[in-house]
Amino acid sequence: MKNVVELKNSPCVLSSAACVGKTEGEGPLKDYFDVCYPDDGINQTSWENAESQLLHDAIDTAVNKASLENNNPDIIFAGDLLNQCTSSTYAVRSFNVPFAGLFGACSTMAFSIAMASVFVDGGYVKSAAAATSSHFCSAEKQFRYPLEYGGQRAPSAQRTVTGAASFIIGEKKRNSVFIPRVLFGKVVDFGITDTSNMGAAMAPAAGESIAQFLKETNTKPEDYDLILTGDLGAVGSRLLIDYLKERKNTDISSVHDDCGLLIYDMDTQDVHSGGSGCGCSGVVTASYIMKKMQEKEYKKVLLVGTGALMSPLISLQGESIPAIAHIVEFNR
Amino acid sequence: MKNVVELKNSPCVLSSAACVGKTEGEGPLKDYFDVCYPDDGINQTSWENAESQLLHDAIDTAVNKASLENNNPDIIFAGDLLNQCTSSTYAVRSFNVPFAGLFGACSTMAFSIAMASVFVDGGYVKSAAAATSSHFCSAEKQFRYPLEYGGQRAPSAQRTVTGAASFIIGEKKRNSVFIPRVLFGKVVDFGITDTSNMGAAMAPAAGESIAQFLKETNTKPEDYDLILTGDLGAVGSRLLIDYLKERKNTDISSVHDDCGLLIYDMDTQDVHSGGSGCGCSGVVTASYIMKKMQEKEYKKVLLVGTGALMSPLISLQGESIPAIAHIVEFNR
Repeated sequence: MKNVVELKNSPCVLSSAACVGKTEGEGPLKDYFDVCYPDDGINQTSWENAESQLLHDAIDTAVNKASLENNNPDIIFAGDLLNQCTSSTYAVRSFNVPFAGLFGACSTMAFSIAMASVFVDGGYVKSAAAATSSHFCSAEKQFRYPLEYGGQRAPSAQRTVTGAASFIIGEKKRNSVFIPRVLFGKVVDFGITDTSNMGAAMAPAAGESIAQFLKETNTKPEDYDLILTGDLGAVGSRLLIDYLKERKNTDISSVHDDCGLLIYDMDTQDVHSGGSGCGCSGVVTASYIMKKMQEKEYKKVLLVGTGALMSPLISLQGESIPAIAHIVEFNR
Repeated sequence: MKNVVELKNSPCVLSSAACVGKTEGEGPLKDYFDVCYPDDGINQTSWENAESQLLHDAIDTAVNKASLENNNPDIIFAGDLLNQCTSSTYAVRSFNVPFAGLFGACSTMAFSIAMASVFVDGGYVKSAAAATSSHFCSAEKQFRYPLEYGGQRAPSAQRTVTGAASFIIGEKKRNSVFIPRVLFGKVVDFGITDTSNMGAAMAPAAGESIAQFLKETNTKPEDYDLILTGDLGAVGSRLLIDYLKERKNTDISSVHDDCGLLIYDMDTQDVHSGGSGCGCSGVVTASYIMKKMQEKEYKKVLLVGTGALMSPLISLQGESIPAIAHIVEFNR
C-alpha cells in the first residue's frame, strides 16, 4: 500500500492564524502575523502558561476568522514539545470541543493539518482545528539550560520560535487553498547524538519522506512552487539538499526553503542556525505561506514538517535522535 | 454535529497483544497475557529502554498474530507518558512503517484504537496498529520520586502498570470483534490539584464522555455487558458512579468495572487504589477483555480510556489537573 494518502474530497483551509513573541515580531515576517506580543511573558506568570496562552490565542483567532456554523470546530488536533504536551492540553480546556492530542515534536503543524484533513475528508467531522506552539524560554528551560545560567549555544544550534499557529480545515470550498494529499512519515534514525545539531538529525527523515512522496505521486521537485521544510535551519537544509542529491538523485535546491531560515533575519538577528520548535513551521505556514497562496504567488506547496523525537533524559543516556517528517500538500 | 463518530464499515480487531512486568504477571489476569517478564528490567540498561522494549514486543507480537499481507500494518498509532513519548518513538524505530504519535496520557489505548479505527473505516489504510505502554519504575522516576528514595504513597495513589499493549485494527472480517462507534473526549478540569489522586481528577471526564455517548447513541447502561473505565482505581470508580447518578441521573454500577481494579488482586497485592498508567487499560483490554469477547461472554463493551493531562512541572506551579476520556465501543 502507498504511504501517500489521497484526499479525494479536497479538504480546504478555512482560516489560519499565527501569534508570536518579541523576536519573531521583529523579524522579516512581522507584517504577516496576526498578533505580535511585545513581551514573551504574554502576561502570564510562567513560561509554560505563556506558551499555552499563545496557543489558545492562535486557535481562538483562527476559529473567529473561519466563521464556523457552530462557532467551534468539531475537533481540535494539537500538540507541542512541553512535557506531557501541557501547552496544548491547558490551551484547549476553555474550548468545549473534542481534543485529539498529538506528538510529532517540531513536525506537529504538518502532522496536525494532515490529521485534520483526513478527518474532514472522510466526513467524520465538518471542521477541525490543527494547532501547535513553542516558546523559546519554556524550551530552553526544559531541553537545555535555565535562561539565568547563560549557557553558550553552538553555531549549529537553532533558536526555538516563540509562537503558536492554528489552521481550521473544513469541507471543500471554492477559491480556497486545499489539501489533496498528505504523507505520514516513518521514524528515521541516522545515529546523530548531538542535541545541538537537530537539523542534522532531522534532514534524513525529511529526505526520505520527500523522496517517497515524489516517487509515489510520480512528481518532480519542479512540479512544486515550494518544498518547505519545517525547521532544518542552515545546517540541516544543506544536509537535506545533499542527501537527496547523493542518495535519491533528486535536486530540490531550486524550490526548497526552510521555515527556520524564513522567520528570522539570519544576518542581523542572533539566531545561529535559524529557527526551530513546533511553532516555527506553524507560524510561517499559517501566515506568510497562506498569504502567498491566497494571492496565487504559490499554487503548489509541500510542507515537510520535521521533528526530532528524543527526550533530554534519553539523550543523556546516550541514545541517538530518531526523527520524522510528515508532509502536507497545499494546492491553490 | 454529534461527537460520537459512526464507523459504517465496521473496522475490526485483527489481533491484540499484551506484555507485562513481574507484578502484573503475578496478578489475577496472569494467564491472559502474551508475555509476563520475570523482571521489570526487561533485559535493558534503563527503565526507559525497558518500557520501550515492552512496547516493541507488544506491537511485534500483535503484528505476528494478525498475519498481515505485507507483514506490517500501514500505520502505527502510539503514545505514552514518558517525556516526549520516547517509549513509543524508540519502539517504532525498527518498524519501517508510518508513525502517528499520540498524546492522551492514560487514555492512549482507547484513543489510539479510535484513531486506527477511523483510518481503517475511511479506507485510508488497510490495517493500523494502536499501541501504548507504561512502566512503574520509569513513571515513578519521572512523575514522583526516584525509587531509591522510598517515598510513601498515599492510599488514594495508584500503581503504574508495567506493561504494553497493541491492537491491530483491520477491515471488516466475519466472526471478529468490531468497532461500530468511537467518541473523542473533551478536556474536563474539575480543579483537582492533588497528583496523588488522579482517579478523582479523571472521574468527571469519564462521566461526561459516558453521558454524552449514551445520549447521542440513545442507549442505556444496561445495553452494554460492560462499561470499562481505564484506570480510575478504587477512589475514582466510586466517584464516577456517584457523578453519573447525581449529575446525569444515570446508574452504571451494575455494568461498570475498571481496568485498574481488574489487573491486580486488591486484597493481596500492595497497590493502594489500584492500577494506572497507559499500559493499564491497554493490557487488560488487549488480553482479558478480548478473550471474553471472542468467547462471546461479552458482546457489547464500552472501553472508556481515561487520562490525566498534567505535567509534574505545571502541577508544582499550582495548576489543576485537566482530564480526558476517549471511548471505543467493541461489539461481537
